[in-house]
Amino acid sequence: MKEFKLAIIGFGTVGRSLAKLIIKKSEYLRKKMDLKLKVVAIFECNGAFINENEGINLKQIVDIPPSDFTKIKDWKPDYLADDHLKSLGFDIMAELTKTNIKNAEPAYTYIKTALNNNIDVVTSNKGPLALYYPELMKIVKEKNRIFRFEACVGGVIPILGTYNNLLLANKVIAISGILNGTTNYILTKMTLEKIPFEIALKEAQEHGYAEADPSLDIYGIDAASKLVILANSILGYESSLNDVKCQGIDKITPEAIELAREDGYVIKHVATAISGKLEVAPKLIPEDHTLDINGTKNIIILETEEAGDIVISGRGAGGIEAASAVLSDILYICNIRKKEN
Amino acid sequence: MKEFKLAIIGFGTVGRSLAKLIIKKSEYLRKKMDLKLKVVAIFECNGAFINENEGINLKQIVDIPPSDFTKIKDWKPDYLADDHLKSLGFDIMAELTKTNIKNAEPAYTYIKTALNNNIDVVTSNKGPLALYYPELMKIVKEKNRIFRFEACVGGVIPILGTYNNLLLANKVIAISGILNGTTNYILTKMTLEKIPFEIALKEAQEHGYAEADPSLDIYGIDAASKLVILANSILGYESSLNDVKCQGIDKITPEAIELAREDGYVIKHVATAISGKLEVAPKLIPEDHTLDINGTKNIIILETEEAGDIVISGRGAGGIEAASAVLSDILYICNIRKKEN
Repeated sequence: MKEFKLAIIGFGTVGRSLAKLIIKKSEYLRKKMDLKLKVVAIFECNGAFINENEGINLKQIVDIPPSDFTKIKDWKPDYLADDHLKSLGFDIMAELTKTNIKNAEPAYTYIKTALNNNIDVVTSNKGPLALYYPELMKIVKEKNRIFRFEACVGGVIPILGTYNNLLLANKVIAISGILNGTTNYILTKMTLEKIPFEIALKEAQEHGYAEADPSLDIYGIDAASKLVILANSILGYESSLNDVKCQGIDKITPEAIELAREDGYVIKHVATAISGKLEVAPKLIPEDHTLDINGTKNIIILETEEAGDIVISGRGAGGIEAASAVLSDILYICNIRKKEN
Repeated sequence: MKEFKLAIIGFGTVGRSLAKLIIKKSEYLRKKMDLKLKVVAIFECNGAFINENEGINLKQIVDIPPSDFTKIKDWKPDYLADDHLKSLGFDIMAELTKTNIKNAEPAYTYIKTALNNNIDVVTSNKGPLALYYPELMKIVKEKNRIFRFEACVGGVIPILGTYNNLLLANKVIAISGILNGTTNYILTKMTLEKIPFEIALKEAQEHGYAEADPSLDIYGIDAASKLVILANSILGYESSLNDVKCQGIDKITPEAIELAREDGYVIKHVATAISGKLEVAPKLIPEDHTLDINGTKNIIILETEEAGDIVISGRGAGGIEAASAVLSDILYICNIRKKEN
């Protein structure tokens, strides 16, 4: 049985969901894939769980609050990724800290450090990819590393792998989609219940679909980050967040939605990448158009040269969906590295 | 640059489209993937193009009618796959003959022969997989071969690769979908234009969406074959075509469709695999349900344990779509084998 050592950075929703999923799937991994994932480090901002020999006992820690970390034998306070990431021995790093869209730190540094140390990387963090995609890919190439980030885009939709593995023979010309579940939920509410933006936003917050500070969602920054990642990895762009013409949904009124409806249209927050141009903006979409989906769902349309449109849709990301994408990426790496040895 | 030798069996619509695609993509393959596909053999039922050294000049033959094959230097009349498949040297076989749903021959024998000779195989032929899936997978495992068949299911939708590569961490519980573009076209016509089955079928034939003998489509055999392949490869079933409870669309009347519509339903020809049971039958689907798609489109819903439904849709297969899927499969194999050497 092949064993892979894993370091996790960030033990929030996604990190904990990943730990739970690893516990749940360990039997399956052993039996069906003949492999074991040993988590040797989990870094938080004030310390880390570390157990290089036996691996961390995940069951012991997945449900405890941060205030109880100190009760765990493997917890090392003040043991920080900044100081120890380089010296620790592991095969794969899962960077799961919160997206920082201003300068992508500290994730950007962690990912560079790992890649430069010949570690394969998976991430659910949009920041580094939305801001420094070309730089990161250069290191990936130089170091012959695998870097996967399915969890960053399109929620549960396995779009990057679909593209990477399956459309090898086909050229994608353009991408369009609804890449943010929160704004789609708000617009759906406004349309069906004829309520103003502020009230729909409030409901989204009450249901946990929108953050206390919803600005990344409603101004389109989150969708724009995903669009940059999709366009760079699928269309070969070398863009960053600043290249996206971005318009939020905060100015949409129930009256505008009603006027659109009278003409057979709905208003959707649509991301498009075509002919080198990137845009996230409210658009008039004909009712029953492929993009006319409701609720928190995400949808991506790949316009291909040889095969028309390929459409893929699924739930927007929550913790468990993101963790499932992260684990898929990890197992993809394991499969490749296993064959090499 | 790594060179892979390819043998193609069947030079009909898919075979010719594949040859055209290989010509079109050769520059891309060389530059971006550092590989060359050399087609050393193309078998037809009455002879073969053979050029083991330089490879067949595809440009010379892609558009000529069978009656002109004898004008080509590489054409060897009466050189048949049955006699020569074993002795010929090549890396990958593309089995693209017409599906024979009775006994899957001659494709079944060709594929077994190739696998047993340590050749990797791709196919667009549903017969062998719908009838002998477990047997073939046993040889694949014993011989450590790669066997891909994306073109067999769901038209342009890259469903198998999506599953194989990306949902590693996620369990699919059930599959449902519309797997045949012809019946969906006919039902769509019947619904929108309130015309009887026979007339809609005739229009489908006039538009080239239905064969002169449409029985495989309208009785659900084609959809059932695809369902078997999906269920076996994604849900781990070991089923064959006989296990599918199969009902055609030939008994559907405009009156039934109208009655359904009055209650807010449409009639769709739906394939389902759940709890070990396989079925293809006309079903009442609520209007605006995910499966309520029109025209020749295919759609597949994967119900997952961790991530809700993942939906993927695209055009039903034509020659170029199938060829695109076949080439993707071929390049997948090249990528894997390249890394091994």
